[in-house]
Amino acid sequence: VTGALTNAQFLLDRHPDGTLLESHFRKVVSPIPIPRGGQVLCRTLFLSLDPANRAWMQGRTYRDQIRAGEVMSGFTLSEVVDGRQGGISSGMIVACEAGWQEYAALPASDLRKIEVRGALSHHLSVLGITGMTAYFGLFEIGRVCPGETVVVSAAAGATGNVVGQLARIAGARVVGVSGSDDKNRILEDELGFHGTVNYRSERFLEQLKDCCPDGVDVYFDNVAGEVLAAVLLRMNTYGRVVCCGAVSQYESTGRPAGPPAVPGLIVTRRLRMEGFIVTDFRQRWEEAIARLSGLVDDGRLRVIEDIWDGLDAAPAALVDLLRGGNVGKRMVRVADSTEGTAS
Amino acid sequence: VTGALTNAQFLLDRHPDGTLLESHFRKVVSPIPIPRGGQVLCRTLFLSLDPANRAWMQGRTYRDQIRAGEVMSGFTLSEVVDGRQGGISSGMIVACEAGWQEYAALPASDLRKIEVRGALSHHLSVLGITGMTAYFGLFEIGRVCPGETVVVSAAAGATGNVVGQLARIAGARVVGVSGSDDKNRILEDELGFHGTVNYRSERFLEQLKDCCPDGVDVYFDNVAGEVLAAVLLRMNTYGRVVCCGAVSQYESTGRPAGPPAVPGLIVTRRLRMEGFIVTDFRQRWEEAIARLSGLVDDGRLRVIEDIWDGLDAAPAALVDLLRGGNVGKRMVRVADSTEGTAS
Repeated sequence: VTGALTNAQFLLDRHPDGTLLESHFRKVVSPIPIPRGGQVLCRTLFLSLDPANRAWMQGRTYRDQIRAGEVMSGFTLSEVVDGRQGGISSGMIVACEAGWQEYAALPASDLRKIEVRGALSHHLSVLGITGMTAYFGLFEIGRVCPGETVVVSAAAGATGNVVGQLARIAGARVVGVSGSDDKNRILEDELGFHGTVNYRSERFLEQLKDCCPDGVDVYFDNVAGEVLAAVLLRMNTYGRVVCCGAVSQYESTGRPAGPPAVPGLIVTRRLRMEGFIVTDFRQRWEEAIARLSGLVDDGRLRVIEDIWDGLDAAPAALVDLLRGGNVGKRMVRVADSTEGTAS
Repeated sequence: VTGALTNAQFLLDRHPDGTLLESHFRKVVSPIPIPRGGQVLCRTLFLSLDPANRAWMQGRTYRDQIRAGEVMSGFTLSEVVDGRQGGISSGMIVACEAGWQEYAALPASDLRKIEVRGALSHHLSVLGITGMTAYFGLFEIGRVCPGETVVVSAAAGATGNVVGQLARIAGARVVGVSGSDDKNRILEDELGFHGTVNYRSERFLEQLKDCCPDGVDVYFDNVAGEVLAAVLLRMNTYGRVVCCGAVSQYESTGRPAGPPAVPGLIVTRRLRMEGFIVTDFRQRWEEAIARLSGLVDDGRLRVIEDIWDGLDAAPAALVDLLRGGNVGKRMVRVADSTEGTAS
């Protein structure tokens, strides 16, 4: 094992009520864990930062709540540095959930081997959970068809930008919703969105209507709240709402009311609102990775990443992400692979 | 043509804001219409009263809004008394939308011929739109499986009681929600519901939990509002909410907020909420009628009807229906068939 003999970690120090702050985290330095009983020692290369990280603090979701005092959870790309207990080769690159720390000892069964294609970071963005979420949400839940109008919120975000690009490639008209005119310019000029709307604009409702002259067939919702309420009113008969996230509510202290259109418009316009978690489609990830990789190689799908350096940057990077500071997939580069340098 | 030479009609006299009253209707007597250009003269035998009648007054839904001054709309079973213009035999029984009047001249293409099986009234209840709604909602939208728990609201209503019985026949555990202990006794003692809950009880939430120890897999929602909000919290992963109606909101003057669980729980529990209108399945009605008729003949599906006599009863019958006064399918017997008596 090369590198430090200690393991820098960030704990969730206090449970946040409302707005998450950097001060909710605390850095500690522990010994590197010793893998036991089938465990594999992994070194974190890239740490993914996701709005869902904040939701995990709020309560039990599709996984256990993150409790104060625990190492902060997070998806990672890691390198196996000692795989003997798990029968895994050292040097293998794996996707796992090592959390906010330099090293983790994880059961071999919790690791997903990565066949690296192109830049390693792509396996946390378009070829990772983000890309899988966009792919299965849009095609399996949204069932988009050519000529339809697709609206996606948090459109400049990690998932949203891929949703929009994939919908465009699938022959749909794509309208992105974000909270910044600068982001919207990138979406239109660089990613081929047909239209964009700024939900912070006073003319949001009017602009949304203007951008969707034929109504909305598929709404890929990452945010909930007022944007969901507004887009629902523009849905066409038999429209589909892909319920992927609710980032506008992850820091709410109360229980926000649902959109007034539910369930009245769901009945009269025969809408389908459906939620999903990307792991529901785990058996088909390899298929999606192959297709997305092909689109990246062909230059049809652009990869937008927002990489911060060093584990120490993680708290600020997550807090800023929840304020909408990112364009594309935000992650932290924790360490470089030793592959080829160590022996 | 036997009977009166005049046509008694009820108009929607004023648009209701909030609670519908009998005084919103006005009776007028007009000449019997003369069928022209493909029209068929129909005499109303049974008039269906449905919560949706009230929704139609609120605004444009899947059909035009009912405007003040127009004959009140309603589904009917009618007898063709002069079908020459439309090439239809006199005496034929048809389902149509003649509205609240004794006679109507309707395009032949708007009539659906009824092959009468058993009591004629069944073709407005279990073999009519009500039964079709229950059948396609439960099986096509709800996709109920044996062993699952199904909750249905307005469970003693025209659609609800059929939903519950069909779910029981399909091997599910069925819990009915109504606003009356008397109704609930009928559901359990006579219709085979496994459990019932009174949403007016102070212990509603607790009773709902007790009645659904394994959670809820399918919720057939006829009412929206607080019952929907409460059942959503008990939904299992991959649960389905069949959005059929929103009767608790049809007399609202504002825009009621949606359930707080939307979209948060939809994501984390991967729920599907989906609306439908029974006419979406029009091509398959004959299949459903044959199956439902077989279940009625076998005594497995009980037909519960609530028939008032005379067109003059229609305003009170609808107002009372919206207060939850009915058990089973409410309709008005407007006239007896002349079949076999006239010649």
